[in-house]
Amino acid sequence: MTDPIELHRKLHGKIFIGAKAKMKSMDDMATLYTPGVAKPCLEIAKDRSLAYDYTMKWNTVAIVTDGTRVLGLGDIGPEAALPVMEGKALIMQQFGKIDAIPICLAEKDPDKIVEIVKALAPGFGAINLEDIETPKVFYIEKRLTEELDIPVFHDDQHGTAMVVLAGLYNALKVLGKDERAKIGIVGAGSAGYAIAKLLHAAGFSDIIVFDSKGAISKNRSDLDQYKKELANLNKSGFSGMISEFRGADVIVSASKPGALPFETIKAMNKPNIVFALSNPMPEISLEQAKELGIDIFGTGRSDYPNQINNAICFPGFLRALLDLRVKRITDAMKIAAAKGIAGSVKDPTKERIVPDVFDRKIVKNIFRKVKKVI
Amino acid sequence: MTDPIELHRKLHGKIFIGAKAKMKSMDDMATLYTPGVAKPCLEIAKDRSLAYDYTMKWNTVAIVTDGTRVLGLGDIGPEAALPVMEGKALIMQQFGKIDAIPICLAEKDPDKIVEIVKALAPGFGAINLEDIETPKVFYIEKRLTEELDIPVFHDDQHGTAMVVLAGLYNALKVLGKDERAKIGIVGAGSAGYAIAKLLHAAGFSDIIVFDSKGAISKNRSDLDQYKKELANLNKSGFSGMISEFRGADVIVSASKPGALPFETIKAMNKPNIVFALSNPMPEISLEQAKELGIDIFGTGRSDYPNQINNAICFPGFLRALLDLRVKRITDAMKIAAAKGIAGSVKDPTKERIVPDVFDRKIVKNIFRKVKKVI
Repeated sequence: MTDPIELHRKLHGKIFIGAKAKMKSMDDMATLYTPGVAKPCLEIAKDRSLAYDYTMKWNTVAIVTDGTRVLGLGDIGPEAALPVMEGKALIMQQFGKIDAIPICLAEKDPDKIVEIVKALAPGFGAINLEDIETPKVFYIEKRLTEELDIPVFHDDQHGTAMVVLAGLYNALKVLGKDERAKIGIVGAGSAGYAIAKLLHAAGFSDIIVFDSKGAISKNRSDLDQYKKELANLNKSGFSGMISEFRGADVIVSASKPGALPFETIKAMNKPNIVFALSNPMPEISLEQAKELGIDIFGTGRSDYPNQINNAICFPGFLRALLDLRVKRITDAMKIAAAKGIAGSVKDPTKERIVPDVFDRKIVKNIFRKVKKVI
Repeated sequence: MTDPIELHRKLHGKIFIGAKAKMKSMDDMATLYTPGVAKPCLEIAKDRSLAYDYTMKWNTVAIVTDGTRVLGLGDIGPEAALPVMEGKALIMQQFGKIDAIPICLAEKDPDKIVEIVKALAPGFGAINLEDIETPKVFYIEKRLTEELDIPVFHDDQHGTAMVVLAGLYNALKVLGKDERAKIGIVGAGSAGYAIAKLLHAAGFSDIIVFDSKGAISKNRSDLDQYKKELANLNKSGFSGMISEFRGADVIVSASKPGALPFETIKAMNKPNIVFALSNPMPEISLEQAKELGIDIFGTGRSDYPNQINNAICFPGFLRALLDLRVKRITDAMKIAAAKGIAGSVKDPTKERIVPDVFDRKIVKNIFRKVKKVI
């Protein structure tokens, strides 16, 4: 692999602002800039929605972070978050033809972040929240979704959840199981929370989420409002630790290496499905997965089969939101997108439950499915 | 001229986000994005200044507006301001190779605008304030300049003032006059205020600024803090209306058609210089200027000689700020830039006191001159 430091130094920024028109004469300048530009300005002043016709708004996404939870690196600050946001913008451009702009904020207060993003919204067609710590980001997403008239997407939650659901659809199909599967989710951060909520919305009925203190159930007195929502999904009321969890058909871990005990895997209901999403080091290695006899195993790694990679989802999902001019994301859209992703794999097998990130069909398939539920 | 509406609809946004690298393989993705991207992130977390080496920050300018004073159109709102900001970004890219990003804010409170721009600053190498109403913008510029460690430029003020000063240097040279010239400035908005301040800083000693109530002098009791600064420049204490103003060598009007009475022009000290900067309709037409016998006449129009056009200045000046990694703009830099612009005209004449906006030399000349005063 090329040295990332060397490459980043050489590129000196991974994205740039390009011009769609060249000014070769004063006449060009007078049409693209003053005085001619006053005409579209005045039309937009009369009808704000014309900004979608005359400006970049229709295709522009703000990638907003405060740098408090960047990759697995923690709170490294807005400047240090920039390479990740530029990388994200690169992926959005390459796979989704989206103009995405990194917005790295030197501001951590959730209410102030909400105010800032609301102020920025006129120039954007959608907001992508990124690498903001939980539970703050849940609050920010909820308020922005309620208060803005453009869609607010949080990839760490919904991107991950959609790819997990897509993989799960195909994995269950391969194994001949269905929505009645018993599911354990390890980790109650952005990913764990959103996976649990989306699986529930998609009709899965037996979902137990674990944090470091054990199963999240109504017996717990230490739950914030978001974990209380997760406790509501725990129908059996199981309140043990993950090491005591038995008979799962599916385990999805969005935690860290060591968080997923082997005895839990061994006590699963066969055939079984395990997604170990910790990155770059999964909770379980491919070798361990084989030794444990896991039937379908997915991770975030590109050198293992079944890469549960958000990049499979977010360029196409955002593309669909922009093209369909969606104002607010619904569970139905997320489920539809997951079906679009799952459907991009022609004949799913144990080693191929999600499409390759470079598969050009995905974007179109997501669009087609999401369009049907608008 | 092409119809601006048609052209804007066709372009559907004048700028786009381009990719400097293509991801052809998972290996590329792992270097440009996760997990490889963690390396530059961690280095920047240790030393924030490395963001200039590993990210787009070094070359990126935020064009910030609240849409309250767009062109001569007034408060048309942030969406309607977007075509102007995109046009500005287009010019910055074409002439200055700058990555400029429109930031159109749905927020008019000056303190909140300051907070927002401060929060946005980590991702940018410079801030360009644009089309924000006075006197609010003076306050915003002052606070941001004091509180940020990247340069804050207000083109409506300083861009205009630098091009006026550049034109004035050449015009005085052509006419054999100098800094002792008696100067009247009509209009005390962004442009008038900044022109007066910059001419004063450049050594001009006889400057009187007029607003709609007449000469701004210490006799007035209706002055805000910015107009009080202008009153300090009025050494003679003249307190009449512009129509009573006599014996000027230079008049610069940054007001509106009708604001510059013919009797004032007729009573000027010959040979004379008049810049009528109202846009798109100058205070005086070329025909009227000829009838009035004005020796050197400049306007904002491209179809008249001597176009006092900010686009002559801002791409080169911002380019210099970025390349020299300037933290705070000084008067010396602005004067140096004006000299660089003036020097781009090889043999100035009455009809050619400023360079053509398409002249590639300007950017280099500004850089060379500004570098000397860093």
